[in-house]
Amino acid sequence: MSAFPPSFETLVEKFASLPGIGVKSAQRLAFHFLSLPDEAAQSFISALQEAKNSVRYCKVCQNLTDSDVCAICSNPRRDDRTICVVADPKAVAAIERSHEYNGVYHVLHGVISPLSHIGPDDIRIKELIARVTEHDVDEVIMATNPDTEGETTARYIARLLQPFNVRVTRLAYGIPVGMSLEYADDLTLIRALEGRQAF
Amino acid sequence: MSAFPPSFETLVEKFASLPGIGVKSAQRLAFHFLSLPDEAAQSFISALQEAKNSVRYCKVCQNLTDSDVCAICSNPRRDDRTICVVADPKAVAAIERSHEYNGVYHVLHGVISPLSHIGPDDIRIKELIARVTEHDVDEVIMATNPDTEGETTARYIARLLQPFNVRVTRLAYGIPVGMSLEYADDLTLIRALEGRQAF
Repeated sequence: MSAFPPSFETLVEKFASLPGIGVKSAQRLAFHFLSLPDEAAQSFISALQEAKNSVRYCKVCQNLTDSDVCAICSNPRRDDRTICVVADPKAVAAIERSHEYNGVYHVLHGVISPLSHIGPDDIRIKELIARVTEHDVDEVIMATNPDTEGETTARYIARLLQPFNVRVTRLAYGIPVGMSLEYADDLTLIRALEGRQAF
Repeated sequence: MSAFPPSFETLVEKFASLPGIGVKSAQRLAFHFLSLPDEAAQSFISALQEAKNSVRYCKVCQNLTDSDVCAICSNPRRDDRTICVVADPKAVAAIERSHEYNGVYHVLHGVISPLSHIGPDDIRIKELIARVTEHDVDEVIMATNPDTEGETTARYIARLLQPFNVRVTRLAYGIPVGMSLEYADDLTLIRALEGRQAF
């Protein structure tokens, strides 16, 4: 028999289902949550509910937003003729932290990965092609992670973009090969942006 | 400007307020949560709400429960004349896992810690004294952690219990089973020698 009530064990299971949280950590989180004052606990629950209700994808760039068009796409001071293509929203956050980039983004939400059965149609490539078709775009900067799948995805998209009158570049290899963009430091990201090269 | 909507950032903050979760982990948890199907996300939220609503303290032993009296205290096969005093519910879970103990518990919810301004009245000592006063208790086993604060708390409680006709014991100190002697610290070795037992 467990020493704890079922609703506690359920909570531990839920925490343990999160990435990187083991059973011991999940138990600690559950104890912590239950020890919170009612107000703080409700505020935690509301934050989850509110995020789940309001966060969706920008209809232009596919980044996370709480309105139809995200804050970056709807900012008139951003250069919408330069599109930086990234695998996920974490990469947008990383590049924004560098304060070096003034264009807009396109979030693929994944990379082409035959081993995981993720093909070109499973990520948001056609939305990118539609943007380039429908709007004046000068440059598309490929900023997928510098690993095999990211590179494959970048080359695939670069080939699709060949018929268009658009410069296709990619981030310079200032980023250590194999490292996830999310963990790159600001200076490395700045150098990588400055040194971007034609495909 | 953040690359993400405010409700996402709020969610990251909430996750980051949990013990042992840094900002990067919190962001990963928030992305994971938002990527859950609606049903799974709602089930996560319900588990938090349900636990917060239903989990309270057993009015006898102060352990977590979802009824007035916990499953251990209300089990007629447990020996309620033996009370094991622990600092927190995690210790109850650890002792229950051993399947060796058939008495009941008393959870203090903390230890006396002058440095953290936690005095005897801030933990559930008076509830223990009330139990010993009002019921027939043969033995109180002190099972606080074997550190300075746990030891201080155990000694304090042992002194309070002196006027009662009750045996006060504490868990044996010694070498952990399976541990090599060469890695035992000096204090543990001294305690193990002091507590040596006849074969």
